Amino acid sequence: MVDFTLSCPVPRIDEQTVQLAHGSGGRAMHRLLESVFMPAFTNPALESAHDGAVLNINGARLAFTTDSYVVHPLFFPGGDIGSLAVNGTVNDLAMCGARPLFLSAGFILEEGLPMEMLQRVVRTMQAAAAAAGVQIVTGDTKVVDKGKGDGLFINTAGIGVIEHPLQIAPQSVRPGDAVIVNGDLGRHGMAIMAVREGLEFESQIESDCAPLAEPVLALLDAGIEVHCLRDLTRGGLASGLCEIAKTANLHIHIEEAVVPVNEDVRGACEILGLDPMYVANEGRFVAFVPEQDADRTLSILGSEARQIGRVAAGQDQLVTLKSAIGATRILDMLSGEQLPRIC
Amino acid sequence: MVDFTLSCPVPRIDEQTVQLAHGSGGRAMHRLLESVFMPAFTNPALESAHDGAVLNINGARLAFTTDSYVVHPLFFPGGDIGSLAVNGTVNDLAMCGARPLFLSAGFILEEGLPMEMLQRVVRTMQAAAAAAGVQIVTGDTKVVDKGKGDGLFINTAGIGVIEHPLQIAPQSVRPGDAVIVNGDLGRHGMAIMAVREGLEFESQIESDCAPLAEPVLALLDAGIEVHCLRDLTRGGLASGLCEIAKTANLHIHIEEAVVPVNEDVRGACEILGLDPMYVANEGRFVAFVPEQDADRTLSILGSEARQIGRVAAGQDQLVTLKSAIGATRILDMLSGEQLPRIC
Repeated sequence: MVDFTLSCPVPRIDEQTVQLAHGSGGRAMHRLLESVFMPAFTNPALESAHDGAVLNINGARLAFTTDSYVVHPLFFPGGDIGSLAVNGTVNDLAMCGARPLFLSAGFILEEGLPMEMLQRVVRTMQAAAAAAGVQIVTGDTKVVDKGKGDGLFINTAGIGVIEHPLQIAPQSVRPGDAVIVNGDLGRHGMAIMAVREGLEFESQIESDCAPLAEPVLALLDAGIEVHCLRDLTRGGLASGLCEIAKTANLHIHIEEAVVPVNEDVRGACEILGLDPMYVANEGRFVAFVPEQDADRTLSILGSEARQIGRVAAGQDQLVTLKSAIGATRILDMLSGEQLPRIC
Repeated sequence: MVDFTLSCPVPRIDEQTVQLAHGSGGRAMHRLLESVFMPAFTNPALESAHDGAVLNINGARLAFTTDSYVVHPLFFPGGDIGSLAVNGTVNDLAMCGARPLFLSAGFILEEGLPMEMLQRVVRTMQAAAAAAGVQIVTGDTKVVDKGKGDGLFINTAGIGVIEHPLQIAPQSVRPGDAVIVNGDLGRHGMAIMAVREGLEFESQIESDCAPLAEPVLALLDAGIEVHCLRDLTRGGLASGLCEIAKTANLHIHIEEAVVPVNEDVRGACEILGLDPMYVANEGRFVAFVPEQDADRTLSILGSEARQIGRVAAGQDQLVTLKSAIGATRILDMLSGEQLPRIC
């Protein structure tokens, strides 16, 4: 595989210490995972490079996943750290094709956090859990001294049950598969950035933060042979597709003109010099399904869903994007840090 | 129930904001749980007030638990944040009477953390997981800006399987039960404090950080009718017993002369004005078993184990301690903050 990072200027990452780019969802994070975490924790579940682990316990097939949430600011249009902490983990379970059942919640509070803020977040979590049909069954609270945290960090872990025989994973993707997204991209990232940068647009950009178990289970219930699912969080569509192309050892081709991006989001991205292909979402996912199931998939996912491309036969592990004017370029994994603390 | 906090000076806790005492494992933390978290997340698993949730999934009986680790310093005699993060969650599963199987690991890294430190911690986690017989199967990494964290926080969640029909919970404790600890108390807390305060003793105090699943499963395999188990972490023996007396609606009586405390630990506690009954442990637990099983329990737990008391018939939810000189006092839950960021 050609290393395309050689062909363009890449921010240098000091590998002696942890940098913000190590949390980006891009190339630096993958290098950290591959150099530090994977060699230590090697086991088949972790090596599947999926959003969660699929486990067999006493005959039950379970999905298990975790995420910590460090989003800044804690509250943003369309959600807060609490809805993110519930939906993010619910969605990782959904991406394993699991029905989310139970969550844990671990809170790291900074001394001085207004109690009213904590209460607001806890209420949001409760509402989000009810909406997603999960129960928060176990928890933990730690407090760190003022100046040693940033208000509130939340970790959630989740357990879901897999009720179908499919192996939903990058390894199941096949040449010819349709690549489908469930809606417009980039809203979560731009909602956060607009708040941080104090940008105002004609209409406020709201995060797309939402639970994804219902649409995924609807696909499975309809008998769609889902090959792979990936929610498009840190690193956005581009990073998700690059990971899958690499793990599945295939080539994914995308038509830029078909990728749905809201006009406000596109405008905000232009102002900030960001590419919507790399901007984080919290209620968007990509589904890989056999070509003959594409139309049914689109009709189940609703009017916002689009087929944005397909899987080609090549084993070059590349993602290519054909632009609106017809030029084709390689969509590479994010090299540096685009949006720190987006989730 | 009489509120004994009225009879002695209690540090005032500003309930408008989060304070360090809210992470103490004592009274302030319980008030936070009862006023903020429990009303929102109410469900039977959470209300059992146990170290983990017991769940039925497709016929399998599973335990599920989580803890975040914010210990300061990251490295201490006898362990580091990595061994703590594995053993702490393994032990919460063991306290449900479960065989620990799988862990998740969520890392919150502060920008600038030396990569070598992260690698050391990850290696310790790997070794601790191997020693405890668990696999780390899913994980997450976030990075926060310099000054918004404290080097490294870790969350682990764990899944274990329950292979016996017992209901190991405070609600199963009965009058007459023997109260047994598996070894000497206070070493983890004093190992941390000695490092923080720069104290030197004739011999270095090492944390007791250790996995507890093996001794617990040995009790169950031997057919001991275990009623309740509790690991004696934040808030120490006293807080653990107070929680159980309250939840079980019983009276627990302890003989101070029998409670094992190492001489170095006792000396360090005296210097710092701390009561070993409230100091955190990371490899110690209390078992409630029927009186007729007490001797077998002691012999299985080994030569360091001691029967320190018994459950009385009163429903006053109190823990009383008979001192070496014969006086009896009430052992109350920790009111303020004794040792912040001990785990």
